[in-house]
Amino acid sequence: MEFSLNEERFVETMQAQAEIGGTANGGLHRLALSDEDAAVRNWFYERMDRAGLEIRIDEFGNMFGRREGKRDAEPVLIGSHLDSQPYGGIYDGALGTIAALEFVRELDDRGIETERPVEIVNWTNEEGSRFQPTLQGSGVWAGALDIEEQYAATDEDGTPVEAELERIGYKGDHPAEPAADYDSYLELHIEQGPFLEANGKDVGVVTGIVGLTWGEFTFYGEANHSGATPMHHREDAMVAAADLVTQVRRIPGQLGERTVGTVGSVDVEPDSINVIPEEVSVTYGFRDPDAETLREAERRVRREAAAAAEREDVAVEHENRADATPVAFDDRCVTAVQRAADDRGYDSMEVFSGGVHDATHAAEVCDTGMVFAVSEGGKSHTEAEYTDWDDCYSAGDTLAGAALALADDGL
Amino acid sequence: MEFSLNEERFVETMQAQAEIGGTANGGLHRLALSDEDAAVRNWFYERMDRAGLEIRIDEFGNMFGRREGKRDAEPVLIGSHLDSQPYGGIYDGALGTIAALEFVRELDDRGIETERPVEIVNWTNEEGSRFQPTLQGSGVWAGALDIEEQYAATDEDGTPVEAELERIGYKGDHPAEPAADYDSYLELHIEQGPFLEANGKDVGVVTGIVGLTWGEFTFYGEANHSGATPMHHREDAMVAAADLVTQVRRIPGQLGERTVGTVGSVDVEPDSINVIPEEVSVTYGFRDPDAETLREAERRVRREAAAAAEREDVAVEHENRADATPVAFDDRCVTAVQRAADDRGYDSMEVFSGGVHDATHAAEVCDTGMVFAVSEGGKSHTEAEYTDWDDCYSAGDTLAGAALALADDGL
Repeated sequence: MEFSLNEERFVETMQAQAEIGGTANGGLHRLALSDEDAAVRNWFYERMDRAGLEIRIDEFGNMFGRREGKRDAEPVLIGSHLDSQPYGGIYDGALGTIAALEFVRELDDRGIETERPVEIVNWTNEEGSRFQPTLQGSGVWAGALDIEEQYAATDEDGTPVEAELERIGYKGDHPAEPAADYDSYLELHIEQGPFLEANGKDVGVVTGIVGLTWGEFTFYGEANHSGATPMHHREDAMVAAADLVTQVRRIPGQLGERTVGTVGSVDVEPDSINVIPEEVSVTYGFRDPDAETLREAERRVRREAAAAAEREDVAVEHENRADATPVAFDDRCVTAVQRAADDRGYDSMEVFSGGVHDATHAAEVCDTGMVFAVSEGGKSHTEAEYTDWDDCYSAGDTLAGAALALADDGL
Repeated sequence: MEFSLNEERFVETMQAQAEIGGTANGGLHRLALSDEDAAVRNWFYERMDRAGLEIRIDEFGNMFGRREGKRDAEPVLIGSHLDSQPYGGIYDGALGTIAALEFVRELDDRGIETERPVEIVNWTNEEGSRFQPTLQGSGVWAGALDIEEQYAATDEDGTPVEAELERIGYKGDHPAEPAADYDSYLELHIEQGPFLEANGKDVGVVTGIVGLTWGEFTFYGEANHSGATPMHHREDAMVAAADLVTQVRRIPGQLGERTVGTVGSVDVEPDSINVIPEEVSVTYGFRDPDAETLREAERRVRREAAAAAEREDVAVEHENRADATPVAFDDRCVTAVQRAADDRGYDSMEVFSGGVHDATHAAEVCDTGMVFAVSEGGKSHTEAEYTDWDDCYSAGDTLAGAALALADDGL
């Protein structure tokens, strides 16, 4: 196969983006719509501009760059996101966005005119850490999220999304919706899991994305002096919450080999060494490729929360935080990725994504597929996230091959 | 018995102090060395001054007011503290300090000259919530805590105690140490437990204070994506911490009828719904009247922490936060309180204090005793803390009777 990316420039571009919001520990702190996000957007804008792309910024800050094809046909869209988790890694999101840029640069270098137009994209606020929910930009674009509601979402300081979009100059004029009937969407992302490395593979052919159910339980006990209150007089919200954490650890083992469950965040009131906790909130999240398994996890965790509350004689309330149904990718996109990997001699395996991605929402709009790069130790959402440059390049090159095939009607 | 406090003024004075830092829910938010603490100190200073007391502020902000006796003998010291927990109650500490003030006022009203001098005291930072540790002022005074170390203790914003003492004008000139050989120390405090109410008593004769052991365990796992990391690849610090919370709930039931154990505070990093927790710290505290039982609780909780860490394949570190050996009060002080209650017709019972008090440190300096007032529902360290005025008065009146007996060498 002749077409492949320029590895030296690919690595240089990855290193250059990692400087913007880079941390002392080699990670990235580039929260959505922050000054660092504004800086990397300007940097990306300039590079799209130099590559001769027709740039569109939509009302929700999603950045598109279009390269025309021989025909005015449905375009192929590729990209990912440039925002990061708090003190996250330099690959998550950035790798897929940079690979998209390098693809159109390589087309230019080789003077290739594709059959279909190609568009590259940087989605707004994929991470959902500064502003919730995750996948905010692609969700608005796909019509899954209401733009006015998302404009009003605030960060911890009460600053709304819309004000930050205006402040950094990325509330664009184009409607936040698909500008065309897209032929397909491809996204490269790091795996964020251990399967590729554990199986010694170069690249992952993603066949779908797990669904998730997220929520929060708040236990209400009675605040009391930790010394003067006998054990049998207590209504201790902390003990009930701990009980629930144990159950969230246990439930996946009853449901499926891919089921996972996590308690990531806890909030305690009044949070003093000397006071029996009155109010303890714990988040929970389950993921699985199967929608019915997720519903069963949700039923079980609610039953366990009620039982934990009863055991400790406290009250409990439930709040739903997010739901995403599992996604199965389209055969032609999966095949395009598989063939691109095979043609280039990369050892690949099919994997199911444990994390959600902007591809989740793109799949509601057009045929969608994904490429995974190896994540060393499966680490992600941490500064220790790592993919070596060879693995970055293998995945980027696979994306490029698959995108070219789709853009040239090869599938 | 003729001598008793003026009930109307007693209640009025209690209500007046509750206005300073009072909350919308009828509680008190008067953190040590805050503007509210400064305001109540000024208010208390003025009332001591009007009562003709000779006022001393020591280098650690402890406030003393002295009323001379017939003889230049060892004085009787009575008092408590005027600082509060965050959104705490209006009785904790204040009741004992106001009762002391009302005692010397009543002596004046009746023109009584006691044999021994009487001193009243408001201790600095009893609560230990803004600045740790608890009992800071009385601890420095008794020589149990080093003044330079305590000056350097900082609040959450990094402001040190010494700077705040200077800012509010309460870093005094007198050495923070006993100004005399004290005959005895008496303190009235709310029970903060349920025993008096449950037994239908008017007042508690306190025979001692439980000891405590406080510490913190920090579990170190691995931060990872909550969706992409299979359950068997996890090192989840939260799961180990929850396991420990369950053990702290269980251990007291194996040790003694008065043993209590509490996890009051949890800290999670990175504390995101979407990330497996890397670092989770949990505080713990055990209390018991028996020192050997406390040592056994400490041994067991350390063993359980190690087991919890091993089960979840995470690391764990331990930090000691505080220790207090149990205190047995002196017979003559206990007898003074008992007789005062009996003489006034109050139905009393002997109780052991589940909370530490400034009396803990006073007992290192001189003979010490305490009076407990009924705590409705045992509630304390919360805005819902409540003692009806009759019960407040019964306890204050008992304190006054006991203090007069000691000051007149009746015991």
